[in-house]
Amino acid sequence: MVELIVKKRNGLELSKDELTSIIDGFISSEIPDYQISAFLMAIYFKGMNSTETAILTDLMMRSGELIDLSEIEGIKVDKHSTGGVGDKTTLILAPLVAAAGVPVAKMSGRGLGHTGGTLDKMESISGFSVDMTRAQFIENVKSHNIAVCGQNANLVPADKKLYALRDVTATVNNISLIASSIMSKKLACGADAIVIDLKVGHGAFMKTLEDAEELAEVMINIGAKMNRKVIAVITSMSEPLGYTIGNALEVKEAIDTLKGHGPEDLTDLCLELGGHMLVLGEVAENHEKAVLKLKDLIKSGKAFDKFKEFVEAQGGDVNCIEHPELLPGAKYQRTYKSNENGYLSELNALDIGLTSVKLGAGRETKDSAIDFGAGIRLLKKMGDFVENGEALAVLYSNDESSFEKAVELMDLAYKISEEKPKEKRLILKTMR
Amino acid sequence: MVELIVKKRNGLELSKDELTSIIDGFISSEIPDYQISAFLMAIYFKGMNSTETAILTDLMMRSGELIDLSEIEGIKVDKHSTGGVGDKTTLILAPLVAAAGVPVAKMSGRGLGHTGGTLDKMESISGFSVDMTRAQFIENVKSHNIAVCGQNANLVPADKKLYALRDVTATVNNISLIASSIMSKKLACGADAIVIDLKVGHGAFMKTLEDAEELAEVMINIGAKMNRKVIAVITSMSEPLGYTIGNALEVKEAIDTLKGHGPEDLTDLCLELGGHMLVLGEVAENHEKAVLKLKDLIKSGKAFDKFKEFVEAQGGDVNCIEHPELLPGAKYQRTYKSNENGYLSELNALDIGLTSVKLGAGRETKDSAIDFGAGIRLLKKMGDFVENGEALAVLYSNDESSFEKAVELMDLAYKISEEKPKEKRLILKTMR
Repeated sequence: MVELIVKKRNGLELSKDELTSIIDGFISSEIPDYQISAFLMAIYFKGMNSTETAILTDLMMRSGELIDLSEIEGIKVDKHSTGGVGDKTTLILAPLVAAAGVPVAKMSGRGLGHTGGTLDKMESISGFSVDMTRAQFIENVKSHNIAVCGQNANLVPADKKLYALRDVTATVNNISLIASSIMSKKLACGADAIVIDLKVGHGAFMKTLEDAEELAEVMINIGAKMNRKVIAVITSMSEPLGYTIGNALEVKEAIDTLKGHGPEDLTDLCLELGGHMLVLGEVAENHEKAVLKLKDLIKSGKAFDKFKEFVEAQGGDVNCIEHPELLPGAKYQRTYKSNENGYLSELNALDIGLTSVKLGAGRETKDSAIDFGAGIRLLKKMGDFVENGEALAVLYSNDESSFEKAVELMDLAYKISEEKPKEKRLILKTMR
Repeated sequence: MVELIVKKRNGLELSKDELTSIIDGFISSEIPDYQISAFLMAIYFKGMNSTETAILTDLMMRSGELIDLSEIEGIKVDKHSTGGVGDKTTLILAPLVAAAGVPVAKMSGRGLGHTGGTLDKMESISGFSVDMTRAQFIENVKSHNIAVCGQNANLVPADKKLYALRDVTATVNNISLIASSIMSKKLACGADAIVIDLKVGHGAFMKTLEDAEELAEVMINIGAKMNRKVIAVITSMSEPLGYTIGNALEVKEAIDTLKGHGPEDLTDLCLELGGHMLVLGEVAENHEKAVLKLKDLIKSGKAFDKFKEFVEAQGGDVNCIEHPELLPGAKYQRTYKSNENGYLSELNALDIGLTSVKLGAGRETKDSAIDFGAGIRLLKKMGDFVENGEALAVLYSNDESSFEKAVELMDLAYKISEEKPKEKRLILKTMR
């Protein structure tokens, strides 16, 4: 192992056999963590080329269970977001593209830290279950063209173990390691093609467009080497997506969007990503036609019908979907007001995410309980003019004592300026 | 700790408090090895400046016992060699400079791998003991101006632990880490001034003169920041020093040298290093005068007398010193011959060192037993003309079965060429 560390430290390429022995030794704990962490830091400085990155992805993918979706007809297109605040696109995209004829066999995660998770959001619908056997999961996709379940504990264990070590050794921030971590998970879940929503901005992991482009390129390369089509959409993540943050609040906004009256930014993003999914899934000729098709499905009510079908198939109470006021609410609410006149020039997604956790909507640790009704409804977004004393947002919680700390965090999120900020485009670039 | 790794990874300077918390946490095992190894790899790539290096040295020095030599009058000058094969300079220098009036309170190490250790060599003298209490040690220096003992187990524990981790994580090869490791040990042993014999060449740790100069500069800087004078002598280590390798064989050669008829390279090196020690110890005005003084001490027999006094004071049988043929010998010997005509153009020190271990003169692991009589006597050195069938060396061992493997290793060490190789200078540069 020392020789392999030296090799990477000196900037040389590692062979497939060499990388295999490292990952095998790491999983079996035959190679101690202190050697792996030195190796990771060498990668941080010397990088990995596209061949090494694809090999690492393949090794991590094969370290655990591989989901076999071959029983399901059609091209299985998965979507991945690098993480945002108020990002409920999966709730909308899953039924939307399923209604368009692309089979959706999705494994999602739970929220942790300042970002929410699709599973938590769906579970705010009474009775909805994400626990199912592999057979049930595939059966649901066959019958309804859609199923969303939790990730198996035995999925990409090598990535889980490696990420935990990277997290505590300042070696997270390497393009090859990030790309192989994302791609190994998606590929292990059986995706034939992948659309990646790559967030960029100070609320996201990638801070600059350049970094995001580099990461997109590496992921597209991994896909190419592993015979999977990958499209990366680079989108801006400075303020939260849509107007709601918090589980039931986000389900409500997803319903609005599926019915055609959702917020503009969220709708646009879903059409952009969904359009690529339809093209990759070969149910539309090109992106323009795909977007028209998606708009039709929303307008005709078929997208919303598919959402209801999906909820019912997984044991959820459809009544809650037809009457969203029945979804979990909050006993207490607090209006958050502006104390000056001006344009809203900053609405920091990270701080808003942290506020929602404080209110009970998220998890501070893996085992925290979630308050489905807690969260934030934004009333103003970036570029809006606000007056002194005007409400900027409403906070919801079932724990009244949480408001004090939450308001302190909100104060950090907002900046009001005399000048109107430049309008920021949401969708920055598409790469394939 | 993650933040501190990030800081170093990004090439920033760490403060005294930050370095202290890292080393303290490492010693107490509160900071896990996998974080330290990532930190070490970040140092490998980003380095440490002279302030950080001096702080690290000080922290390691203070991590264990500090030897207090203040009871002993005069300036205590220590010598350190970065490791060579056939390097018996301490055996000669210790009595030589003690005879010149510089107090010698030396803590030495044992041999490991292809290099021998002073303690092992001295113990080949029947009865000689290196185990003594701190009080005895100081008493011996006061009465005889010389004592050599083993290093306390509690000396620089931080360095021991750190070196063990560096060794298995490909992070040994960093100038600041090497320099602080050497200097912390010397300073913990109570040295007021230090002469460093810095070997360079393919048999040594530093491969080029440039690297050696850089290391010398860092060590001199550490000394300056800690108020200790340091002189570094950069010397060539391509072939072994002198003609003998192996414990009793080296004692015999040391005796020859103390009596004035040792090999030229060994004698020159001892005079060079000893000269600097006398100047630093303020018993000579300048190097030239110091060397004359040392030559006188050899010529007059005073240096050899001091050696006998030293051996007697530590329980050794002086009879062995007066009649070196009484020192441990070997039951078996084998002549190693040339199979071609030409000039000896390579005599690889590393291979010769490994041969001596194979014959029983060294330790393959920490707990191996040593055969004091085993070793090698070189009959030819680089630049000598040899004829086909002429003896190049004699191998000695008490285990006849060891010769076969030993001869295979010897074959690797030698190269004979038609052209006479360029003469190499032994002493390349002196820095202070």
